[in-house]
Formats: sequence, structure tokens, C-alpha cells
Amino acid sequence: MSTTIAYAELVGLLEKIFLRHGTDRVVASILAENCAMCERDGAYSHGIFRMPGYVASLNTGWVDGRATPEVEDVAPSFCRVDARNGFAQAALARGRDLAISKSRQAGISVLAIRNSHHLSALWPDIEPFAREGLIAISAVNSFACTVPFDGKSAVFGTNPFAFAAPVENSEPMVFDLATSAMANGDVQIAARKGHTLPPDSGVDGDGKPTNDPRAVLDGGALLTFGGYKGSSISMMVELLGAALTGGHFSFEFDWSGHQGAQTPHTGQLIILIDPSYGAGEAFDRRAHGLITAMQAAGVSRLPGQRRAEIRAQTAQNGIPITEEDLASLRTLAIA
Amino acid sequence: MSTTIAYAELVGLLEKIFLRHGTDRVVASILAENCAMCERDGAYSHGIFRMPGYVASLNTGWVDGRATPEVEDVAPSFCRVDARNGFAQAALARGRDLAISKSRQAGISVLAIRNSHHLSALWPDIEPFAREGLIAISAVNSFACTVPFDGKSAVFGTNPFAFAAPVENSEPMVFDLATSAMANGDVQIAARKGHTLPPDSGVDGDGKPTNDPRAVLDGGALLTFGGYKGSSISMMVELLGAALTGGHFSFEFDWSGHQGAQTPHTGQLIILIDPSYGAGEAFDRRAHGLITAMQAAGVSRLPGQRRAEIRAQTAQNGIPITEEDLASLRTLAIA
Repeated sequence: MSTTIAYAELVGLLEKIFLRHGTDRVVASILAENCAMCERDGAYSHGIFRMPGYVASLNTGWVDGRATPEVEDVAPSFCRVDARNGFAQAALARGRDLAISKSRQAGISVLAIRNSHHLSALWPDIEPFAREGLIAISAVNSFACTVPFDGKSAVFGTNPFAFAAPVENSEPMVFDLATSAMANGDVQIAARKGHTLPPDSGVDGDGKPTNDPRAVLDGGALLTFGGYKGSSISMMVELLGAALTGGHFSFEFDWSGHQGAQTPHTGQLIILIDPSYGAGEAFDRRAHGLITAMQAAGVSRLPGQRRAEIRAQTAQNGIPITEEDLASLRTLAIA
Repeated sequence: MSTTIAYAELVGLLEKIFLRHGTDRVVASILAENCAMCERDGAYSHGIFRMPGYVASLNTGWVDGRATPEVEDVAPSFCRVDARNGFAQAALARGRDLAISKSRQAGISVLAIRNSHHLSALWPDIEPFAREGLIAISAVNSFACTVPFDGKSAVFGTNPFAFAAPVENSEPMVFDLATSAMANGDVQIAARKGHTLPPDSGVDGDGKPTNDPRAVLDGGALLTFGGYKGSSISMMVELLGAALTGGHFSFEFDWSGHQGAQTPHTGQLIILIDPSYGAGEAFDRRAHGLITAMQAAGVSRLPGQRRAEIRAQTAQNGIPITEEDLASLRTLAIA
């Protein structure tokens, strides 16, 4: 049985869940909006599907839902945030104004978040920067579940890499891609639905190729996308997201004492560029020109376009949700 | 018949060729070293194989081998170089000290090169930054030869994306990957040798998949690596390499009046990060830790390791070269 829920109502319900399980009001609001945005835009692997993971991470004390992130202004174009074992999105919210101001003054800036948990997509983090006219690049590592090219066991996380840029007279151009062959959330959804995985997605516990999502989740691992190239980019995500920020690598933290916890405890890097310092025609106009050329070449669906389409639909019709999922969320809000 | 040539001797010979075909001494030295390094390290698609292309671009007046690049210091962390229709490597050489000093002072900096020609690999541009303790990222677009995912005709270039980082007690970690399924030089080499291409590399003039390198070069096009993900990264390279710098997109310049010219006239972006501003243990030590974990997981060949191995071999034994290639180079030096 399916129904719909309005965006604001979903945000309110998710806020209640976060508050019920020990976050403060700021964190509840940030994560509820983030999670509801994913569900609203059809990014289901990072929507309400993730709520039990958030709750388990909070309930077992693996993540601190009341942490106060500390911003460190270390150089004209470099700021850091110690998330203090809290959520990366709260750390980003605390550091974003400083990072934006630095990029506008200096042309480019770094926001390096460490000691942080990230269980969502990256596009909600960076799309707002593009709406303010900035180019944003972000990388976050996760937990060891992906085999480096030419390797036999997992070292990397799903390690998404994301990019956002302003486009004249248009929505920002935003992509957000797992450098693993698939996002972990999609493997979990496939396992739950009994689907098989596409070829070259993962290996089982013996390191043998498999298209069974349960074999990947149960002792197996994902492969990187695009062979050695995707593996190189995944390695870069570890270096930027963890080594540069001062966070954990995906293989470094031990959450075995926190049964059910799902929030990787790593780091996140964000780079902001103010394109107004570039030469020639305005960046956003040039970006529009590139998109026009891609469409002229027959591209019918630009990166991020599916999300924009679903966002428009759900704004009109509400966000589809099953009665069962809605009941589960309501239970989590009082459990 | 094969012989060998010492690195310094090859540099000298290539310098003569560049000078003979109209570059000044600075440009001749920069490009000769760059090209000889590629040949020395086994990066054959960007080694002496490229010399006829350089010469044709110079002879037809498509590129200015005597251009004086102009450095523009536009913000505390943003510098630009107008290459004035010269080579990107000469523009980089002119701007690099300023970009390094900005990154050390501010934590991160941008060097945005426009109105420039780039026919080589990216790793020779960025490896030196890692040797100075900096993280470097670079992107350069090229000429329309790659079909965007879901498209029917070429819009993007081969659009390499490269990354370099310092590693404690070790060579820098450097990767440099074409976001097309293959580098153009490798397609040309396959065509010359009569080899077929791997699956999913390219399409023929009718947009149909082909493994014939001549069909790709003759009216066909390359595909991106890794499907829509590689295509997104290629799009990012266009936006960073051209829209941000003020250079041409890969589909924008018209070299039809310059028969044989092979140097794409676009732009190049370089981002430098000083990792000493990061929190926690030293970046290069952390990078070493990641590499150790990759090796423990069975990775026998790290990104860039093949180049390092061949470099060590050729340092001892000289650079292998056929008599025929050597004769061709000697002819180019006096022709």
C-alpha cells in the first residue's frame, strides 16, 4: 500500500526520530532535511532507507549526536572542522560560511572535516554552494568494502566523489558518484528486493566474482568502477578525505563493539572555487554552453537531471512512501 | 633494429627539432624534457611518437612556439596564465613559482592556464609539485573525440585528470588517466600496429561500437571510461580546464586550416594543496600507510609504479629506440 507524504511533514517526522535517539535540535534538523531531500529526489539509497542505520549508530554510542563541531581557521584559504565524533553535515554547517568567505576572497578554499560520520549522499552537501555561484568538489571515504584494482581484499570505502557548478538560467550541474561499482545502499536494496547485481560489481568472501548482493554484503566486497581508473580515483578519495583532513582511512576504525552502527567514522574534504576570478566569459554562461553542446550531441539525460525531475514531481504530488515504511518511521520516532 | 639512447642525448635531439621548427630556447628545452621523460618512463603514447604532431602544429602556424606567457596574479590563491597561443607547459613553468608560494601561504591555490596547447601527458606537469611536498590535481581538455554517455557524437576530448601526492620514504603517488576509454595516442599506436581495441572503447562513423582503431580515428569517436561516471568526470574536466580558465572547450576550436596540426588549443587547470595545514599525522606518512594497506591487500602494482620501474631500467640501460625512429628524429632536426 502506497501513500504520499509532503516534504515538510517528512522532515518533521525524521527530526522527531533523531531527537528521540539522542541528537540535539541542530543536528536533528540538519540530518532530517538531508535525508528527506534524498527521499524527495529519488536518491533512495540515501533516503529513509538509512534511518535504522542512523538510529543504530546513535543508540550504540558510536556517533555523538550532540557533538559541537570546532572550526579551526588555519590559513587564508584553509579551514578545518573537528566534528568531535559527530556528523559531518553538522560540521559542514558550522564551517561553511568561513569556507565560502575564504573562497570569495582568495579564489579557492579548503574545508577539511575530520573525526566525522557521513552516511548520506554528497550532492546535498555541495549543491547549495553552486546555487551561490561557487564550484564545489567533495570527497568522503567510508568503510572498507571495496577491493583496490589488482588487490584481493577490501581497503577502500565506496568513496564518493562529487562536483557541483553553477549554470546560467538553469539548475546547477551536480554529479555524485561512488567510486565503487555501486553504492552500498544500492547493494543493500538489491539484497532486500532479491535482485542480482550487474556484472563486475563485486566479489564473494573467496574473492570470486559474484552478482549476488548477499554474497557481497556477507564477507565479500565491491569492485571499483572503471577498473584501475576508478581504483585510482578511490585511492585519491582516501588521501583527500582522510590523510589530508586528519580523519580515519576506511580500513582504520573498529566499530565491532557497536552492533548495527552504520555511520563510517572518517573525514570529508570540500574544495570551493570562486569562478569569477577566471578569465573570459562568465563561468555559468560557459557551463550552459557545454550543456547545450551535450544536448545537441544527443544526451537526453544530463548528470543530476533525474533527481531534478523527481524533485519537480514530488513537489507537486508529494513524496511516495509505503504505509509500511511510514509506520516503521513512526515507530522509530517513539521507540 | 633497436638501439638505446641516453636521456640527455634524447633531450638534446628533441631540443634541436623544436628549435628547427620555430620555438624559442625556453620552449624547446621544456618540451624536449617533457617528451623525453615520457619516452624514458615508457609512456610511449606521449613520447617521441608525438614529435610529428608537434612539428606539424608549429609548421602550420597553429601554435606559437615563441609566445611569452603572461602571468596574472588575481587573488591571494588564484593565478592565471595567458599562454598567448603557446604551449601549456611553458605557461606552467612561468606561473609555477607564484602558484607554489600561494599554496604554501594560503593552504591551496589555483593556476588557471588558457589560450594554451597541450599534447603531452599530465603527470610530468604535476609530479614535481609532489616532490616539493604539495598535493597537485590537474585537468586538461583536448579536442572533440569522445562521446558523452547517452550521446551520439563527440563533444569531449580525451580529457585527462591527474593527481600527485607526496609519500614518505617513497616516490610520489601519481596517477594520470584519460577519461576517455583510451588515450588518443594509444588508439593511434594501435592503428599503426594493426591491433584491435578492447571492448567498449569506441564507435565508428555511424555511432556503432567498433574495435577497429582506424574506424575510431576516421570519423568515429571514443567512449568514456566507466560509462556515465567517466562521462561525468570528463564533463568536469571541460568545465575546469576550459570554462573556469577561459580556454576553449574541446569542440570549439577550428584547426581545419592547419593540416596535420595535433596540439589541442584549450586550457589547463592546476590545483595545489599544502597538506601541512591538515590535522593529525603528516600527510606523507599517512599516504605511506595507505599504500602499505593496499600492498597488504595484494596490490602488486600501484598507480604510476610501472613508470617508476621503467624509469629505473632506462636510467641504467638507456632508453630503447628503433634505428628507424632515431633516423626520423634526426631528419626532423634538419628538415
